[in-house]
Amino acid sequence: MLLDRLNWRYATKKMDPTKSVSAEKVDAILEATRLAPTSSGLQPFEVVVVTDPAVRAKLKDAAFDQAQLVDGSHVLVFAAWDNYTEERIDGVVSDTAAARGGLTEALTGYYDRLKGMYLSRPADVNFEHAARQAYIGLGIALTAAAFEEVDSTPMEGFEADKFDEILGLRERGLRSVAIMPLGYRDPEGDWLNGQTKVRRDADKFITRVNAAN
Amino acid sequence: MLLDRLNWRYATKKMDPTKSVSAEKVDAILEATRLAPTSSGLQPFEVVVVTDPAVRAKLKDAAFDQAQLVDGSHVLVFAAWDNYTEERIDGVVSDTAAARGGLTEALTGYYDRLKGMYLSRPADVNFEHAARQAYIGLGIALTAAAFEEVDSTPMEGFEADKFDEILGLRERGLRSVAIMPLGYRDPEGDWLNGQTKVRRDADKFITRVNAAN
Repeated sequence: MLLDRLNWRYATKKMDPTKSVSAEKVDAILEATRLAPTSSGLQPFEVVVVTDPAVRAKLKDAAFDQAQLVDGSHVLVFAAWDNYTEERIDGVVSDTAAARGGLTEALTGYYDRLKGMYLSRPADVNFEHAARQAYIGLGIALTAAAFEEVDSTPMEGFEADKFDEILGLRERGLRSVAIMPLGYRDPEGDWLNGQTKVRRDADKFITRVNAAN
Repeated sequence: MLLDRLNWRYATKKMDPTKSVSAEKVDAILEATRLAPTSSGLQPFEVVVVTDPAVRAKLKDAAFDQAQLVDGSHVLVFAAWDNYTEERIDGVVSDTAAARGGLTEALTGYYDRLKGMYLSRPADVNFEHAARQAYIGLGIALTAAAFEEVDSTPMEGFEADKFDEILGLRERGLRSVAIMPLGYRDPEGDWLNGQTKVRRDADKFITRVNAAN
């Protein structure tokens, strides 16, 4: 079932501009993304959901003119924290305490140690770490889209600085790292539709370390 | 359905050492991971599946003694390419040509441009890029495990250099970036089992950019 969905999906190149993804399906995809596990539960990224056609037209200009940004109905922008901060980590401590019956020494001790480690690291090291977590979310989002029978195109081919400016991300301490238009494939117009999926053979992708018998 | 599975899963802290995950379930998880989409289809990572108890004991010592590495039945190690190389990119071109009816100018042109960009970048930039792709696979692997009703614990808390040495990864041009033990939760022994899942509220995780009406 999961494998069927993953085999069905592909990086859609041409979407049908007359079709819109329903709010229910978009919300299911976003909720799956929100449930993504991340390092120490920090969730160091956010998702910006753009439907405004004028804004999507600007984003398309900053994404090498790729048509999915306007032919789809939604563009998800994965924006990672530009750095870890005391305030951000305290937010996680506070959410955890609220959900699990209050502050404990174990909880504050754990995140104090994390602060000791993260807040002394350069911002770009923390950003890279946050970006990796955002990619866990990306992996789950594209799986969720496939489950909803919604087409999507995970993309890195865009000018992140321009996206950040168009969406006002930098002033919020965020940097765009990946995007994912949502929509419905135009089977006639998409050269990639129906092409064989290409993946390395399992024996070149997986190594097994089993006990010798 | 997907959301149910994502709500069911959690970063299992104590696994039942008497239970093993079946080969069928492990293979389904690995196949989902192999189907992960990656930037330009490069799949710049591999998965090492460790069952050997002696090797897992060594890995546990290099993972701050976390018990899941030996109480579970399998440890998945996500190992990213340490760099992009001409040979690696040519492998993707060759696989694509084989799957899709031969070499075309569009195909070789695309990957020649990619080589021009990637092969001139520092190895650590390429490694970080590869690591992000591995995290897409991680996101899909943990979703697939939840679908198989297999418990898992995505982890960054391990000494990557030691893992690389124990598994002989560096000489293969690989670096471990994340691990994921597979097994079955021990509900009695796991303090985290049954605890409320903590995630930021949707309104702090999602921003919507809609057209003004």
